[in-house]
Amino acid sequence: MARIFNFAAGPSTLPLPVLEKIQQEIVDYQGAGFSLIEASHRGPHYSEVHAAATAGLRKLLGLPENYHVLWLQGGATLQFSMVPLNLLAGGKPADYTLTGTWAKKAVADAKKIGKVNLVFDGTEAKFMTLPRASEVKASAGAVFLHLTSNETIGGVQWQEWPAVDVPLVCDMSSDFLSRRIPLEKFGLIYAGAQKNLGPAGLAVVIIRDDVLARCSDDLTAYLSYKIHAAGDSLYNTPPVFPIWVSRLVLDYLNGKGGLPWVEKLAEDRSRLLYGMMDKHPDFYRCPVAAHCRSKMNVVWRLPSEDLEKQFIAEAKKAGMDGLKGHRSVGGCRASIYNAMPLEGAQTLAGFMDEFARKHG
Amino acid sequence: MARIFNFAAGPSTLPLPVLEKIQQEIVDYQGAGFSLIEASHRGPHYSEVHAAATAGLRKLLGLPENYHVLWLQGGATLQFSMVPLNLLAGGKPADYTLTGTWAKKAVADAKKIGKVNLVFDGTEAKFMTLPRASEVKASAGAVFLHLTSNETIGGVQWQEWPAVDVPLVCDMSSDFLSRRIPLEKFGLIYAGAQKNLGPAGLAVVIIRDDVLARCSDDLTAYLSYKIHAAGDSLYNTPPVFPIWVSRLVLDYLNGKGGLPWVEKLAEDRSRLLYGMMDKHPDFYRCPVAAHCRSKMNVVWRLPSEDLEKQFIAEAKKAGMDGLKGHRSVGGCRASIYNAMPLEGAQTLAGFMDEFARKHG
Repeated sequence: MARIFNFAAGPSTLPLPVLEKIQQEIVDYQGAGFSLIEASHRGPHYSEVHAAATAGLRKLLGLPENYHVLWLQGGATLQFSMVPLNLLAGGKPADYTLTGTWAKKAVADAKKIGKVNLVFDGTEAKFMTLPRASEVKASAGAVFLHLTSNETIGGVQWQEWPAVDVPLVCDMSSDFLSRRIPLEKFGLIYAGAQKNLGPAGLAVVIIRDDVLARCSDDLTAYLSYKIHAAGDSLYNTPPVFPIWVSRLVLDYLNGKGGLPWVEKLAEDRSRLLYGMMDKHPDFYRCPVAAHCRSKMNVVWRLPSEDLEKQFIAEAKKAGMDGLKGHRSVGGCRASIYNAMPLEGAQTLAGFMDEFARKHG
Repeated sequence: MARIFNFAAGPSTLPLPVLEKIQQEIVDYQGAGFSLIEASHRGPHYSEVHAAATAGLRKLLGLPENYHVLWLQGGATLQFSMVPLNLLAGGKPADYTLTGTWAKKAVADAKKIGKVNLVFDGTEAKFMTLPRASEVKASAGAVFLHLTSNETIGGVQWQEWPAVDVPLVCDMSSDFLSRRIPLEKFGLIYAGAQKNLGPAGLAVVIIRDDVLARCSDDLTAYLSYKIHAAGDSLYNTPPVFPIWVSRLVLDYLNGKGGLPWVEKLAEDRSRLLYGMMDKHPDFYRCPVAAHCRSKMNVVWRLPSEDLEKQFIAEAKKAGMDGLKGHRSVGGCRASIYNAMPLEGAQTLAGFMDEFARKHG
C-alpha cells in the first residue's frame, strides 16, 4: 500500500497505528467472538471503551472534575442548536463573534432561539482577520460569549483568548486537542470529531458544572445536556465506532507526550508552510492577517488560478491530496490536524519550494 | 476465531462477510492510499458509497420516487424530537399509540412540542398486547398517527397496519427492513440503524414529498428535514462509517433475495423459538398476546428466576450471548434481527428443547 499524505479538511487523516489496530479487531474484538460494533452498549466490552475514551480525554486535557464529558451525535452542527436551546431559554442574550463560515452557522441558529449580540463581525474583512483578544468585550447580561477557535475555510485561529467575565462557549471542531488552553475560561467546549480526534459521526461536548446547572429543564430528551450528563452519554445508544477509534487516538496522543507534544508538532508543521510563503513572497501569498494565522488550516494563493490548478494536480501526483481551497474562497489549503505527521508538512514544503523555483 | 451467536437487542449482530470486507478495506480503501473514514465526504470515494447506500435502500424497499431518504445522526431518540418539531409547529395535534418503552419516549417528547392524542394506551396491560389494526381510529384534525412497529423490550409487533386517513409515522428501529410493508400508508418512517441495518450512530428517515412539504421552515439547521433533504443528507458531515457498513449490508440483503428472503428468514427463525414454547407449555411461557408476537424480539419466561439465570448462563457457555431480558421486565429475550443466521435460531431452539427436558 502506498499511503498518501491526506490534507483534507475533514474527515481527515488518522494515525496509521490506530487504523491497523481497528483492522486487527474489527471482526473479532479481543477474542470475544463478535465485533465491538456488534456488542451491546451496556455490555462489558463497550463499557470499557466508553470509560477509557472519557478517561483518555480527561488525561489529555487535564480536565478538572467539575467538567462533564459528553459523547454525542450530529456534529458541531447539532451543537449550533443545542447550545442556545439549553442556555438561552426564555430569551436570554448571548455574545457571538462572527469570524467565518462556521461562526455564521452558529449565529444563524442561535438567532432562531434567543437574543444574539454580535461583538465582532468579520464580514467586511472577508473573514481574513480576527480581533485582538483585548478588543473583545462582553455585553451586559450576556450568558456566554461564543467563539469559533479556528475557521477551517478562512484559515484564521484565535491565538489569545478574550478576557471577559462571562464563560466562553467555543466551537473547537477544527483545532480541538491541538494545543494547551486555559480551561478555566471555558464554560462549554464542543467539537466535531472528524478533524482532530476520530471519524465523522461524533461530537464531544465538555461542559462545566455551573453551566450545566443553568441548562433548560424543558427540552426533549436528545436535546438536553442534563439528560446526557445524567446518563453518562448512554441515555441512548452512543456512536460506538467513532468513540472506539477516538479512544485509540487519545491513547496514541497521550502515549506520544500529550498536549505539549501535539502543540509543538502543530507549530512545527505550520511553520514549515508559512515559512515557505515567506521564502517566496512574490509567488505565494497568505491572505490571512499574521496575528491569527491558523496552525491547522493553512491557506495560500499563487499568482494565478491556472498555477493553483497545476500546483494541486502535481501535488496529487506526488502523493499529497486534499490541497484545494474551499470552493467558496478558492486557492490552496493544507489541513494539518493532529494525525498529520511532520513528514507530511516537510514533503509539502519541499514541493512548494520546488514549484516556486520552477514557476516563479 | 470462535464466532458466537449474538442475540443482543442492539447494537447487534452483523453479516460476517460485511465485517470481513470492512477489515479488508479499513486501512487502504480500494487502493486509494487512505481509509474511507479519512476521506472527504465530498470526494469521489465517499460520494459513491453515499449514493450506493441510498440506491440499495431504495431497491430493497422498492421505494417510489416521491419518498426521500435521509441519513441522520442521533438515533431514533433524536427523531422523537424532530418528528413533532417538523410536523406539529403551531400546536397541531397528532395521534400516538402507547405500546411500550419506546413509544413512551416518543410520546413524552411529542407532548413537549405539540398536542398529543393517545389513541391506544397499553399501560394497564403492561404492554403485552397491541390493539387490532381495525380498532385504531384517527382523531379529527390529527396530522399523523404514530406507531412503534416493534417494541424491543415488550416483544410486541404490529402484524397489520391501521387503516386510517392520516399518514402513518412509524418508528421502525427494531424491525426495519425485516418484511414487506404497504409503503403508501406511511408518510414518514424512521429507524436507528443498530438493529437491522448497521452499526450505531446512524438513523434513517424516509419521508414522503407531501409530508416534507408540510414541515416547519423555522427550525435550526440540524433539526430541519427540509435542510437535510435539500442537501441530500450532506448539509453537514454524515456519519461515514455507519453509512459505509449499511451500504454493504444493503448489498448483502439485496444479493440474498431482498425483502421476500429477509421476511421468510424472520418467520422461520421466530417460528423455531415460539414453536419450542408451544412444545413445552408447562416450562416456557410467552407473556405476549398471540396476535402481536414479535418476529424480532422473542421474549419468554421460565418457571423461576433461578432457572432463567441458569438458562442464560448455560446458553452463554454454549456460544449464545445476549439472552437476558431487559432489566425492566426480566426473563429471557432473543433478538433475531436481519443478520442472525437461521443456524442461530436452530441452535437456540435445540438448546431450549434440551434445557426443558432436563429441568421440566
